[in-house]
Amino acid sequence: MAIKNRRWLLKRHPDPAELPGPEHFTLDEAKAPEPAEGQVLVRTIYLSLDPYMRGRINPARNYAQGVAVGEVMTGRVIGEVTASRRPGYERGDIVHANIGWQDYGVTGDAELRKIDPKLAPISTGLGLLGMPGLTAYFCLLDLGAPKPGETVLVTAASGAVGSVAGQIAKIKGCRAIAVAGSAAKIAYCTGELGYDAAIDYNAEPDLAAAIARAAPKGVDVFFDNVGGSVHQAVIERLNVGARIALCGVMSQYNPTERSRAVPYNLRNILIPRARMQGFLIYDYAAREREGLEALAAWYREGRIKFRETIAEGLESAPLAFRGLLRGENLGKQLVRVGPEPI
Amino acid sequence: MAIKNRRWLLKRHPDPAELPGPEHFTLDEAKAPEPAEGQVLVRTIYLSLDPYMRGRINPARNYAQGVAVGEVMTGRVIGEVTASRRPGYERGDIVHANIGWQDYGVTGDAELRKIDPKLAPISTGLGLLGMPGLTAYFCLLDLGAPKPGETVLVTAASGAVGSVAGQIAKIKGCRAIAVAGSAAKIAYCTGELGYDAAIDYNAEPDLAAAIARAAPKGVDVFFDNVGGSVHQAVIERLNVGARIALCGVMSQYNPTERSRAVPYNLRNILIPRARMQGFLIYDYAAREREGLEALAAWYREGRIKFRETIAEGLESAPLAFRGLLRGENLGKQLVRVGPEPI
Repeated sequence: MAIKNRRWLLKRHPDPAELPGPEHFTLDEAKAPEPAEGQVLVRTIYLSLDPYMRGRINPARNYAQGVAVGEVMTGRVIGEVTASRRPGYERGDIVHANIGWQDYGVTGDAELRKIDPKLAPISTGLGLLGMPGLTAYFCLLDLGAPKPGETVLVTAASGAVGSVAGQIAKIKGCRAIAVAGSAAKIAYCTGELGYDAAIDYNAEPDLAAAIARAAPKGVDVFFDNVGGSVHQAVIERLNVGARIALCGVMSQYNPTERSRAVPYNLRNILIPRARMQGFLIYDYAAREREGLEALAAWYREGRIKFRETIAEGLESAPLAFRGLLRGENLGKQLVRVGPEPI
Repeated sequence: MAIKNRRWLLKRHPDPAELPGPEHFTLDEAKAPEPAEGQVLVRTIYLSLDPYMRGRINPARNYAQGVAVGEVMTGRVIGEVTASRRPGYERGDIVHANIGWQDYGVTGDAELRKIDPKLAPISTGLGLLGMPGLTAYFCLLDLGAPKPGETVLVTAASGAVGSVAGQIAKIKGCRAIAVAGSAAKIAYCTGELGYDAAIDYNAEPDLAAAIARAAPKGVDVFFDNVGGSVHQAVIERLNVGARIALCGVMSQYNPTERSRAVPYNLRNILIPRARMQGFLIYDYAAREREGLEALAAWYREGRIKFRETIAEGLESAPLAFRGLLRGENLGKQLVRVGPEPI
């Protein structure tokens, strides 16, 4: 008997300034595919929603292939192997796979890897022990290179990446400052996540003054997920030798930003001899194990906490994605597509 | 008998968007100072005019003390010691000294050093074998890190710094592209300086297209002295792993630039994982000898050429300074204040 497979297909590319939502996707129903030699069939349990996906449905120059109209929307999942034609993989294995927004998918590519359910809740394979956690780890430590006593400012500070970056900054003996966009996020940052100070960019009438108050000794490491007007304000406060770890530019996906470009005063880079560098997690594939082991150890020791916001049912994915880009989630945004194995 | 000393004093700070000129300075006449213990009295032969000086008369945050109203305008000179109370220095020595826009000055600070007149014309101590040459050397090699076969784009490419950076790029086996602002400069760049291609930003109707033509394989090293609209266009063409060696922001001194800030699309940094870093020559004081030896060797071998534009007489300094900021000079801008010793 054929297995039914629901899939979200891209209906049309959103305009650059448009927030994606249900109107850009079609929920299609098809027969689940069959694995070819070397592949497994994966039943999706959790689907990950991430800001980078916005770039995949933008028909602009990008670092990876975009999604074409009619194709399954891209996305990573944690799922269960239900059929295997790949050596080393068996029915019942829990895996990380890049199969997109659907109930079932086949894959055998480099992103397929087994998850150890004893290590941590399997959903963390998409967050702390997945791409967001690894991004925070390598982007902060390699590009930001924080030293004890330095001030580290993190934007999107309560998100899947930012929350881990902020906690690693604290582990490394830094003063950590959060920038986030709601009272609930600010409370989460200074409470559970342990940031030393937090700035609500939506509530703060004078961003520059708020940054000066939160970082009285200036900013040594600027871990930026956002770009936009916050970026512009932070670079006014860089210390000599400061590092900007440019991890993302979420503000460019937000149509409420007045402009996609940041009015950049290059003297703010020149005079403190600051360094800005762009980050892409794919460049760190060879060091994945190092990152996962460090993050898992900190998690077990209770030194890194990690929260998830879980939307229920594959059908909720487009709305949950819009919510993510609006900043409505706390921590990692997931969709529960199917039940965990008992 | 007291020695007469003419000095240019700052009369008022120019507005940020204003080009400095004679109206901002007063030519004063005083008695030459006498050297204290540890100092020498220097008679100015050549005065150096450099873009950084614009920043010194701007009452904004900066990396060095600004010049106050009524003070002698700051500047480095090559001069002759006419009296010495400093061990190791004698009357008749040719020295590099930071004594400002005047006929005579006393000094004993870290910038005082002897020049070997046998090595090269003494005026090169303010150019190729001075701060501009050292800036080109360290900023290109340390921040730009060019590799053979890469494409290096240099702005203010015919200037004292840019002309040296472009020639070092060629020595290192790179494709060197010049951006400059007049037909004469373009001819100088592709002729005497040996750039592979050159773009006249004042004559080019479509800067982006011109950059794409000149750099068909993209830009690996962007050596920028200017900022502004050229900067904005070049970052659209960065290759993966590109380096921006941010050496100066001359465009910010030019009132014809529409804005002091560059509208910066941070995706242009993020997606190619580019690195931008600000440069200041003072950070390289300990490596000065290494730079001077390399530059002098290339000069003697005829691998680096160096031109000077010389204004006659101390009284011409403010106008020559304005000309420099307008881009009217070719190569290093000097003022001949007094005769070389016979």
